[in-house]
Amino acid sequence: METIHIQSSQGTYPVMLGDGALDSLNEVIQSLNPACTSFLLIADETVYSLHKAYVDSYLDQLDADIHLVPSGEQAKSFHCYEKAMGAALEAGLDRHSVILALGGGATGDLAGFVAATYMRGIRFIQIPTTVLAHDSAVGGKTAINHPLGKNMTGSFHQPSAVIYDSRFLDTLPLNEFRSGFAEVIKHALIADGTFLQELMRSLRSLEKMDPAFLLYCLKRGIEIKRDIVELDEKELGVRAFLNFGHTYGHAVEAWSGYGNKTHGECVMIGMVFALYVSRHKRNLSFDIDSFRLWIKQLGYDDVFKSAPFNELLTIMKKDKKTIGKEVRFVLLSEVGNPELVPVSGEELEETFLLLG
Amino acid sequence: METIHIQSSQGTYPVMLGDGALDSLNEVIQSLNPACTSFLLIADETVYSLHKAYVDSYLDQLDADIHLVPSGEQAKSFHCYEKAMGAALEAGLDRHSVILALGGGATGDLAGFVAATYMRGIRFIQIPTTVLAHDSAVGGKTAINHPLGKNMTGSFHQPSAVIYDSRFLDTLPLNEFRSGFAEVIKHALIADGTFLQELMRSLRSLEKMDPAFLLYCLKRGIEIKRDIVELDEKELGVRAFLNFGHTYGHAVEAWSGYGNKTHGECVMIGMVFALYVSRHKRNLSFDIDSFRLWIKQLGYDDVFKSAPFNELLTIMKKDKKTIGKEVRFVLLSEVGNPELVPVSGEELEETFLLLG
Repeated sequence: METIHIQSSQGTYPVMLGDGALDSLNEVIQSLNPACTSFLLIADETVYSLHKAYVDSYLDQLDADIHLVPSGEQAKSFHCYEKAMGAALEAGLDRHSVILALGGGATGDLAGFVAATYMRGIRFIQIPTTVLAHDSAVGGKTAINHPLGKNMTGSFHQPSAVIYDSRFLDTLPLNEFRSGFAEVIKHALIADGTFLQELMRSLRSLEKMDPAFLLYCLKRGIEIKRDIVELDEKELGVRAFLNFGHTYGHAVEAWSGYGNKTHGECVMIGMVFALYVSRHKRNLSFDIDSFRLWIKQLGYDDVFKSAPFNELLTIMKKDKKTIGKEVRFVLLSEVGNPELVPVSGEELEETFLLLG
Repeated sequence: METIHIQSSQGTYPVMLGDGALDSLNEVIQSLNPACTSFLLIADETVYSLHKAYVDSYLDQLDADIHLVPSGEQAKSFHCYEKAMGAALEAGLDRHSVILALGGGATGDLAGFVAATYMRGIRFIQIPTTVLAHDSAVGGKTAINHPLGKNMTGSFHQPSAVIYDSRFLDTLPLNEFRSGFAEVIKHALIADGTFLQELMRSLRSLEKMDPAFLLYCLKRGIEIKRDIVELDEKELGVRAFLNFGHTYGHAVEAWSGYGNKTHGECVMIGMVFALYVSRHKRNLSFDIDSFRLWIKQLGYDDVFKSAPFNELLTIMKKDKKTIGKEVRFVLLSEVGNPELVPVSGEELEETFLLLG
C-alpha cells in the first residue's frame, strides 16, 4: 500500500492507496486526536449494496450508524443534505464524532459538506470508490448543488484521512471509469508532460486496465493534486489550474442536464476546447490532433456541438472563476504550464465555430 | 461613534457602534481588499419595511440586489437557506462580492451561513438591528436550524465588518429588547462583576432606557465577547463560556417551540438554573435571590416549570457541548469565573425540583 501525506491548514492527513486499503481504517481511527466518540457512514446506496459484506466487516467494530444516499449527483440536493444532517442528529453525533464517506465524488462532496457544517464542523474520512474520486476526495472541497448552479454551495473542509481501496474499482462501470480517468489526463496536461507521453504511449484502451499501472496513474494524479492544493488550499491562486477543462466542461454538463453525460466526459470535451483556446491565445504548440485521436480511441467524445453557443456562454459566466462578469479560462502555454486568462465571449465563439 | 476591533484568523474586523453608524458603510466597503464587485442585501422583511428609506439611501449607491427573509427563526430553515442561495446566484454574485445582513440574530445567522457557503465562502457585513445581535453579530458563528436541532448546521465565518446603528433599536418591540438584554446580563455574569453591580444598581426597567447607557452596555457586552472569541475562535475551549445559561435555556426554548418564547427570555431562565447548579457544585456565593428579584422587575421569568424534566434532559443531551453523552454546563465559581463542568442527570433533576 502507498501512503501520500497532504499538508493543510488543519494539519497533515494521509491518503492510503492500494488493494485492501480499508484494512487501515481502524488504525487511522485510533490515531485521531481527540479520540472518536461515534461514527456515521454516509454511503452511496449502490456501492454499499455491492460491497456490503466487505464494508460491514469493518463497520461492525466501530458500531457505526449508516445513512444511504442516492448514487451520483442526485445525492447533492438540498433535500438530501437536510436528510443527511437529520441522520447525523438522530445518530447523536457530537463534536468528537467522525463521518465516513463511502462512494464516488458526489457522496464525498455531500458527506464532506455535512461534516463541514454539522455543529460547525466535525471530522470526516473519505473512502472513495471511483476513479473520479482520486481527484475529488483530496483537497477538502465539499459541495452540494443548487438548481441554479452546480457546486455553488459548499465549504473547504479537509478530511482527516482518505482511504482509497482499489477493490471498489472492480465494480465500477466503464463509463464511470472513463469519467474519472479524464481527471488523470487533466493532471498530466497541467503538470507533467512526461506522464502525459507515458499515458499516450502505453494506453490504448480503458477496459481491463493493468491494476498496477492504474494504481501508478492514480498515485501520480493525487501527487499532482497535492502539490497544487498544498500551495493554495482556498483557491486564491494556483488551485484554479485544477479547473483546466472545467469552464467549458461544466457548461456542457449543465446544458446536457447533470447525470446525462458523465462529469469526466464533459471535462474531456472542455479540455479539448481549452487546448484550442490555448493555441489561439498562448501559442500552445502541443499536437492537439494526435491528442484528439488518442482520447477517441479511449472512448471519449472530443467535441460537443448540440448546444447553441450563447447558452453555453451564459452558463460559463456563472463559473466560480468569473470575477466582475469576466470569464476566465485555465490555458496552457505548453503542457505542464497553466495560467488563468480572461477570455472574451467573441474569442470563445471563434473556438466554438472552429471545432468541427 | 465607537469602533471596537476584533482579531480573527481571517484578519481584524471593526465593529462600528453608534447612532447613525450606517453612515460608515461606504467607507468600510471602500476599505475592503480585494475590491467588491457586487452586493446582495439579505434583510429581515419587517426591519426593511420599517426602515426602507433610511436603508435604501445607502443601498442605492451600491446598486445592491435585495432579498427579504421572514422575521425571526423562520428565516433559518433549510428552505429559506436554499432560497437565499438562489437569490445570490440570480444576483450573479462572484467570489469578490459581499453579502450585507440586515436584521436580528436570525437574519445574521442565515445570511452569514449563505456567505460562508456561497462558492465556498465570500465576505459579509453584519448590520444588526436588535439588542440580541450585539452578541450574535460578533464572533463569526453562523447557522441554520434543522427540525431536529437549533443551530446544529452552520459554519465559523467571520464578518468583514459589523455596523451597529442604534437607530434601528428605536423600533424594536420591548419583548425583543428584553430578549437581547439577557445576553448583556450574561456577559456581565461570566466576565465582569463590577459591570453586573452597575447594572443591578442603575437599571430598574428596560422601557425607555437612556440611549447613552444602552450604548455603554452594548459596548461592554461586545468587548467581553471579543475578549473571549479572540482567545478561542472555533470554540475548542473558553468560548463555551459564552454558552452560560444556554444549555437549559435552549432546552426550554426547544420544548416551547422556537419563536413562542424569545431566545433571551429562555437564556435568562437557563442562567437562573445554572446559578443554582453553580451553588450546588461550585459553592457559588452570589446572592441568587436578589438577582431573581431584579430580573423579575425587568420583566423576565426566572423559572420554567411547564415541561417534564425528562423531556428537557433529552434535549440537553443533544447540546453541542455534550461529548460522549455527558451533559456539560457552564458554571460559575463566582461571578466572572466560569468553567465547563460535566453535570449528571440526577444533579440536574435536583435543581429542577428545587426551583419553585
